[in-house]
Amino acid sequence: MILASVILAEAAAVYEGREVVQTQSYGPEARGGASKADVIISDRPILYPKSRRLDVLVCLSQQAVDRYMAELKQGGIAIIDAFHVKECPLQSAVCLPFSETSRRELGRELFTNIVMLGALSRLTEAVELDSLKQAIARRVPPVFLDTNLRALAIGWDLAAPVSEGLERGSESRKEAGRVARP
Amino acid sequence: MILASVILAEAAAVYEGREVVQTQSYGPEARGGASKADVIISDRPILYPKSRRLDVLVCLSQQAVDRYMAELKQGGIAIIDAFHVKECPLQSAVCLPFSETSRRELGRELFTNIVMLGALSRLTEAVELDSLKQAIARRVPPVFLDTNLRALAIGWDLAAPVSEGLERGSESRKEAGRVARP
Repeated sequence: MILASVILAEAAAVYEGREVVQTQSYGPEARGGASKADVIISDRPILYPKSRRLDVLVCLSQQAVDRYMAELKQGGIAIIDAFHVKECPLQSAVCLPFSETSRRELGRELFTNIVMLGALSRLTEAVELDSLKQAIARRVPPVFLDTNLRALAIGWDLAAPVSEGLERGSESRKEAGRVARP
Repeated sequence: MILASVILAEAAAVYEGREVVQTQSYGPEARGGASKADVIISDRPILYPKSRRLDVLVCLSQQAVDRYMAELKQGGIAIIDAFHVKECPLQSAVCLPFSETSRRELGRELFTNIVMLGALSRLTEAVELDSLKQAIARRVPPVFLDTNLRALAIGWDLAAPVSEGLERGSESRKEAGRVARP
């Protein structure tokens, strides 16, 4: 999750020239063993570095939902792993099988975070897919680059029906495949 | 749910001139007290009236998720009531607080189905919002028409962050308010 937040922050800051604050916490500060990471992206200088009233909350565990859901603002988007989160949150949420898809398509859950970033880019439009690709290339060992770029494309595809509706969904799935895959 | 399916079917058939099959079942056929309704919408004649490999599955109860989720096709959209469904399905799903929003904004859960239709229209683009309005006017007693049209607009708004992303979401929320509210 922390690597994902670093990639997201660098995609926005380095490749889109936006103002970004990225923070992360482990253990006690994240209130009990789980880790959490915050990214603020803005087109104006960021005056207050702590994130409040979240626009987007990504939860890859039930713990994360239970602890942080209250920080999502009204009208924000919760993006949730459909396998590791067992209980539906009471607020608006998109549940997608990130971890399961990573396991099925790429053989390991290791790429869950990058699959999630692909979906996040499509669902929120917070950063361009292309900026994420460049940031991944910078952060990921070359030997894993191809698999990570595939993970990103898979995540982009996974969000298609939700973000694009039925018909546009299937069209743009094809297109995303062309654009995002090497 | 059945009224919602009738309104959806009439919106597509009467006001958009499309081919539609709408069926419903209660009790034993719906396998245990719950009711279910199917709508097939097509631009070509529908040769087989039973729905299979669903593009969209709407579930307003946990029972519905447990029984019907397997019928959703790969890449389809499950649309789920965030209050009455307790367990996240393992597939892609959009969880929205239909019933809770109906209760909070309109005083009763009675309008859950129409709130859901507003969100369904926006998320799936299966029918135009305007066709739904006309179908509602035909099916709903005049004294409840205003509240039902408000319910529809509320549902449309509710789906904005999910279907439009963050920035477009807040813009089109305003616009939807203008278009959809009397």
